[in-house]
Amino acid sequence: MITTAIWLALAAAAVPPQTPAPGPGHSLMPVPATMVRQPGLLRLDSTFGVTSGEPGDGRLQRAIARAIGRLERRTGTALGKRIADSGRARLTVEVGGPGEAVQSPEENESYRLEVTPSGARLQAATTVGALRGLETLLQLVERDSLGWYLPAVRIDDTPRFPWRGLLIDVGRHFEPVEAIKRQLEAMAAVKLNVLHWHLSEDQGFRVESIRHPLLHQRGSDGHYYTQAEIRDVVAFARDRGIRVVPEFDMPGHASAWFVGYPELASGTGPYAIERRFGVFAPTFDPTRETTYQFLDAFIAEMAGLFPDRYWHIGGDEVEGSEWRASASIRAFMQAQGLADNAALQAHFNRRMSEILTRHGRRMVGWDEILHPALPATTVIQSWRGQQALREGAAKGYSGILSAGYYLDHMQTAEFHYLVDPLPAGHILTPEEAGRVMGGEACMWHEHVTEESIDSRIWPRMAAIAERFWSPREVRDVADMYRRLGVMGGRLEALGLGHESHTPRMARRLADGQDASALIRLLSLTQPVQFGERSSLQRPTQLTPLTFAVDAARPDPPAHWRTRALAAAATGSLPDAPAARRELAARFAEWAALLPALDSLARRTPRVREALPAARALARVAAIGSETLTRRAGGSLDPAWTRARLAELATLSAPQGLLRISVIPGVVRLVRGGEGPP
Amino acid sequence: MITTAIWLALAAAAVPPQTPAPGPGHSLMPVPATMVRQPGLLRLDSTFGVTSGEPGDGRLQRAIARAIGRLERRTGTALGKRIADSGRARLTVEVGGPGEAVQSPEENESYRLEVTPSGARLQAATTVGALRGLETLLQLVERDSLGWYLPAVRIDDTPRFPWRGLLIDVGRHFEPVEAIKRQLEAMAAVKLNVLHWHLSEDQGFRVESIRHPLLHQRGSDGHYYTQAEIRDVVAFARDRGIRVVPEFDMPGHASAWFVGYPELASGTGPYAIERRFGVFAPTFDPTRETTYQFLDAFIAEMAGLFPDRYWHIGGDEVEGSEWRASASIRAFMQAQGLADNAALQAHFNRRMSEILTRHGRRMVGWDEILHPALPATTVIQSWRGQQALREGAAKGYSGILSAGYYLDHMQTAEFHYLVDPLPAGHILTPEEAGRVMGGEACMWHEHVTEESIDSRIWPRMAAIAERFWSPREVRDVADMYRRLGVMGGRLEALGLGHESHTPRMARRLADGQDASALIRLLSLTQPVQFGERSSLQRPTQLTPLTFAVDAARPDPPAHWRTRALAAAATGSLPDAPAARRELAARFAEWAALLPALDSLARRTPRVREALPAARALARVAAIGSETLTRRAGGSLDPAWTRARLAELATLSAPQGLLRISVIPGVVRLVRGGEGPP
Repeated sequence: MITTAIWLALAAAAVPPQTPAPGPGHSLMPVPATMVRQPGLLRLDSTFGVTSGEPGDGRLQRAIARAIGRLERRTGTALGKRIADSGRARLTVEVGGPGEAVQSPEENESYRLEVTPSGARLQAATTVGALRGLETLLQLVERDSLGWYLPAVRIDDTPRFPWRGLLIDVGRHFEPVEAIKRQLEAMAAVKLNVLHWHLSEDQGFRVESIRHPLLHQRGSDGHYYTQAEIRDVVAFARDRGIRVVPEFDMPGHASAWFVGYPELASGTGPYAIERRFGVFAPTFDPTRETTYQFLDAFIAEMAGLFPDRYWHIGGDEVEGSEWRASASIRAFMQAQGLADNAALQAHFNRRMSEILTRHGRRMVGWDEILHPALPATTVIQSWRGQQALREGAAKGYSGILSAGYYLDHMQTAEFHYLVDPLPAGHILTPEEAGRVMGGEACMWHEHVTEESIDSRIWPRMAAIAERFWSPREVRDVADMYRRLGVMGGRLEALGLGHESHTPRMARRLADGQDASALIRLLSLTQPVQFGERSSLQRPTQLTPLTFAVDAARPDPPAHWRTRALAAAATGSLPDAPAARRELAARFAEWAALLPALDSLARRTPRVREALPAARALARVAAIGSETLTRRAGGSLDPAWTRARLAELATLSAPQGLLRISVIPGVVRLVRGGEGPP
Repeated sequence: MITTAIWLALAAAAVPPQTPAPGPGHSLMPVPATMVRQPGLLRLDSTFGVTSGEPGDGRLQRAIARAIGRLERRTGTALGKRIADSGRARLTVEVGGPGEAVQSPEENESYRLEVTPSGARLQAATTVGALRGLETLLQLVERDSLGWYLPAVRIDDTPRFPWRGLLIDVGRHFEPVEAIKRQLEAMAAVKLNVLHWHLSEDQGFRVESIRHPLLHQRGSDGHYYTQAEIRDVVAFARDRGIRVVPEFDMPGHASAWFVGYPELASGTGPYAIERRFGVFAPTFDPTRETTYQFLDAFIAEMAGLFPDRYWHIGGDEVEGSEWRASASIRAFMQAQGLADNAALQAHFNRRMSEILTRHGRRMVGWDEILHPALPATTVIQSWRGQQALREGAAKGYSGILSAGYYLDHMQTAEFHYLVDPLPAGHILTPEEAGRVMGGEACMWHEHVTEESIDSRIWPRMAAIAERFWSPREVRDVADMYRRLGVMGGRLEALGLGHESHTPRMARRLADGQDASALIRLLSLTQPVQFGERSSLQRPTQLTPLTFAVDAARPDPPAHWRTRALAAAATGSLPDAPAARRELAARFAEWAALLPALDSLARRTPRVREALPAARALARVAAIGSETLTRRAGGSLDPAWTRARLAELATLSAPQGLLRISVIPGVVRLVRGGEGPP
């Protein structure tokens, strides 16, 4: 009988283990706050029924029905009546109440789940807590030769942070409602609770406005959500305990507004939907009263669609040239004693904050809005670094961390996982620390479309979700990757397409030819980082995103697997010889991909995009093979080792628009020695 | 320079080729009516622009924009402005008019497409014809080492039949709007023009009714389309030149109506949504005026949603016991001189036909409605055999063939492909033959869900679509399979999930373990036929359809590939040794799947479902290997051959709920000799 809390303490105290640590005996993700395993188990069979004392709580009943459906599809067993009478029930769900009418960060999300051989009992103060507990219950299900069961367990769980979000940018590339709903399903599965919906950008304005119809008619290329669709998504999110925080970015990143309403801008226009990506001149005119009248009416209309009490105004990357170029704006600044553009933006923000307050909304903005004149109720979202989060908290502002959680940067799950909104040893007072509400991962959409979104967000996002929910001490990377692999399968069963992504897109690139070598290569590579792709390819909104780089996915499983094998191969445990054999086989297979792809590329020109990566991989494989051979013959020559490490560093550069994901594993092999992967 | 028509004539006249015939030099599907290849080609690059003289034709402009988007995603090239000015245009689209306001079977769908090195020109009498031509244009795109191009060609194309449909049954299992839209996208790609939407069943009533809200509130388990969704789907279909013909099945198959409105039924109730599949007692009461008043108001409401001039009343499988049991119904029959249930149903049909006529709709029904009292304007859909089609045509009824096109029966594409609504040598007069409007494939949903629908319909449906569109003489099975493989990739690029299906579902069955052996086994097997599964498993609407049988797909590529290899291996052409080597390798791989799956099944119990198939496949592989060995040593012993063929016939039986798809190929190998696969 071990508690998770105890296990965590041990894990945190221990030196890095020499081989991947054995898991804590479960695959829960995020790890609950406390968990006690007990002897025994509860079988899942056709006698399994669920009862809830709240038949009138539609949200709870729908959640239970969904949970049973997922259980049935996984186990292949019809689990009797959806809602059984309480006498026959094997799962009892008890909630203290339905939760807030409009969910807030103060919502109680905690729950207790107790499984004994005679039944399971889920208790929560609110329906939202029960939703979280149902997800845990589904993750607990295990199997043995007799069938499916829940292990006996007692879990008392509550989130570490009240704000656990995912930003989805539908401005730069649109995402249809189905794609958004898929993300919401997956978010609920890992206990995220905020969809930050980035709805306007230079490249598109995405919501139907009855009041100002030229916004969507001229600013969206026809790709916008109707008001009915917005209501549908918001209701779908609420059913899963997820808040929807809208962002309408201003005063910059606003070109699309001005196509229909140029009078809102600081320049003379005309304006067009921006096709490039970057920071552009078109900016709201903060000196005219008509601007605020327009935005007041706009927010009044949109507030009817977005019930959340928080409202994101953006505020990032104000380019400034239109303000500098306008005589009337300069005159206004002088008259108001506004020293610079930052002061003018602060003036704008103060006016916006007043309008939002009048509509019952609290303002959120990116960290550029930090300014002495900023109203104290504002929430700061830090994206340029952790510094702004600490600075804001010290000045009394509530804050959310996004720096370190940019999914478009194509970092590994490990990288994001180890970023902490409040890391051990932070220097904030308890009161200041209490202002850190949590974090948000950001899925910016320069290089993302409906086809690739699942593979860009998932399963890495599950590691970030754990960072936001679980105790700070949960940071065993090897165990995270083990559970992330399980989570990937769960998410796919929910309808996400991250696993199917590479084969599907590779088949299109192969254009009717056998795509298997290309699929294999892509599973060993990943897209270059955001900035690299931007400068190497310079894609615009009109570039079709169906290249090899789009078919690859960030942090493919081969990355960690190769590192783990390399650590095992150079360790002294009994699994070392098997690990060396497996690595040798892999290196041979990697090398064989080059001739296969060479041949394929002669028949299908688009495969050529992948040839630089295939060549680099062949060289990586050769280094790996030679390392194994040399190690078998004794220790490595230090000069040879240095040369190979230098070569591997060179090979780590972008190869076309791909990067070889398995190089860190080969580096680990060349370095050698005991220690973590 | 060969015309397709000439090639077809040659193909029809020739004896079956000894090896798979070389393709006709294109991968078009369906094959156009006439096609002339010419020297030269038109490059697709960033100078490629499209113009249409009809800027006000929104349907045409949207179709061109979609086509360009698909081209761009395939080629990875931004093709300049969506609609270029006519001077720079490389593709000109000219239409005579927008087509009918409500598309009918009389709509002109023909088009001419001419590609020369200086440009492409698409001409059609109507926008619908242009939609068909755009699909052909997309299929013409080829590549060489310099990039992408359209070959110079002249195509004059027109459909063989005006009614080319797909029935989707959303009554037994619901399909969400996205799934329906995916099917419509794919239907348009193969020039189908009718979605027959089977909207009510014993197991569910799927449309929101404002007038009679208990229909969807009590008859659907919450799975129904709102009226806004219906309008959205109908508009989406119209944009693709597809009519939507609603079916509300009556007087039988109607249990779900009676849950909310038991007074419509012939029995005393109470009624419940039926969970089993089959033919059930609940039946409309055709003797009460209130029934017709209800249905009149219902059709008035639904006619506002479904503009098509055809309306399907079902009419199949009237069970009859409620009519026999009711004294008042028996009295009515006696008073009206209605001799039997068939006569009573004819009475009902005549009343329904009058109501439909009043609402401007022409009645369609299943072949059971054929009866001397049936109004002459009725369209008969034949499902029990081709006989009813011929019989109806002889009696003056228009008809549609569905017998032979039941996708749920899990037949091969070849089987469906060779069924012809008007086969060579039919005995109808030209006038009678003219009454055969075409055909419809049927996707009944006893064993199909949102997860599996793509894999059940596609790509087999493309072969049926070719049967409905292309000249009768197009029936080269080998060439059909070659083009079907290409079509599968095109459909996947459109968003269909038939290729991703087996890996995705297999990963769920493997439940976190390595699924590769299971995926491989499933790619060599297919689901048992509909009736076999019904009797072996007896699934109900509540059975989760996530079994190995659901993960397999009908007619996997391995079926035809093995047959083609076997034909090559026993032929006398130079490729015979290579074919024998490839078969030997395949047999070895098949045999190795059994130990791999045995091991996997010990860890994940659900994989056990696949073990009977793995055992049978291992035996098939052994027979294949032995055949190759014996052939290498000389000719086969006739007694041994007979014994092996008998054994293969036995192995062709259901193995669990799977059937070994590659057995016909091994049979072909054992049989030996020159000839077709």
